[in-house]
Amino acid sequence: MRKGKISDNVIRRLPRYLRKLDEMSADGYTRISSKVLGDAMGLTPSQIRQDLSCFGDFGQQGYGYNIASLRGEIANILAINRRLTAVLVGVGNIGQALAEHFSFALSGIQLIDAFDIRPEVVGTQFGNLTVKNADALEQVLDERHPDIAILCVSQESANETADFLVDHGILGIWNFTNVELTQKAKNVIVENLHFTDSLLVLSYYLSEKQKGKTAAERSQNQQ
Amino acid sequence: MRKGKISDNVIRRLPRYLRKLDEMSADGYTRISSKVLGDAMGLTPSQIRQDLSCFGDFGQQGYGYNIASLRGEIANILAINRRLTAVLVGVGNIGQALAEHFSFALSGIQLIDAFDIRPEVVGTQFGNLTVKNADALEQVLDERHPDIAILCVSQESANETADFLVDHGILGIWNFTNVELTQKAKNVIVENLHFTDSLLVLSYYLSEKQKGKTAAERSQNQQ
Repeated sequence: MRKGKISDNVIRRLPRYLRKLDEMSADGYTRISSKVLGDAMGLTPSQIRQDLSCFGDFGQQGYGYNIASLRGEIANILAINRRLTAVLVGVGNIGQALAEHFSFALSGIQLIDAFDIRPEVVGTQFGNLTVKNADALEQVLDERHPDIAILCVSQESANETADFLVDHGILGIWNFTNVELTQKAKNVIVENLHFTDSLLVLSYYLSEKQKGKTAAERSQNQQ
Repeated sequence: MRKGKISDNVIRRLPRYLRKLDEMSADGYTRISSKVLGDAMGLTPSQIRQDLSCFGDFGQQGYGYNIASLRGEIANILAINRRLTAVLVGVGNIGQALAEHFSFALSGIQLIDAFDIRPEVVGTQFGNLTVKNADALEQVLDERHPDIAILCVSQESANETADFLVDHGILGIWNFTNVELTQKAKNVIVENLHFTDSLLVLSYYLSEKQKGKTAAERSQNQQ
């Protein structure tokens, strides 16, 4: 059904489509127009049609989109049904938040193991996962061939750990270290969650909207 | 120096420019060509020139960019010198990771307070910040007028808390709840760090590259 190369912007909107469609499906809808979907997502109907046309012809004039089949196709594209496997490397605060609260199943990912070097963390239990000593990482990589490593180690060891993971066959790195991975990680897929970048973007839009006035200054002017 | 509206894609690249320029400055460089900067960032020289031309004329033919002045202008655009203030709302694992390890100063943001409803968390110390009872949030919002709220509460209370924050003058929400804020937050700037979306994008690119084979399947084929 796929037509040519899909832009990164469209790809990054797909998870949002998925969430919207799930919500609408839960609310009992079976089909939806590009107008209603666009309103819900803050996009124009024509942008919706353009995005979705990348993946084949779902919409029918005057009928709209069938929610179940559109959802199915997007889930396919996002490889949700591939049962990719992941290991968590570094179980500090972020790692712990992921192990404890994050629903990997929602993304079709299976978290198979977690590792840390600190004795006080090794042995900690999260659901049916027990944090292993980092010494065991090499064997798990070589024997179970996880697809994804979730990198939550310290900034100092980020690149070194990434190199080790790539050397042992990891195909993708979900990078929470706030460090740009500049070495062997270049050969695999890296998805960064750079918190600083995100906060700076927020800061930009906020300043644009407020024409440079902070909330405190605005409040003073009103007095 | 600014020319017209700048696209979201360019804005989201600015923090990366900033990091690169800081690295290069630390390495002793004072100017840089669009070619070298492009190579370092995985962009073409013409994309670099196009991005930076949005903010005025920094480059000189045959000379390149002056790192210090380019850095200064980008920092200005990202409002790093505005000393925006932020409060942390919810000090679970993610909130704790931010309070403990995240350098707000790097983004020019001052974290002035943190709040939680759980008695066992209230009173916890992070640097010179003590987690306050959520009862005190309203007063801090009304008296100190923080610009940004970092939303790290549970999914169930995400929208309700966001509404409360907007009602009390918050201008921007940095949203870690993985929940789409659909109510009053629509009137302020929201920057989402949706972990699921990011993982799905990783999953997509990984599947594209591997043509749908998991690491385990690839390894089996090689045997």
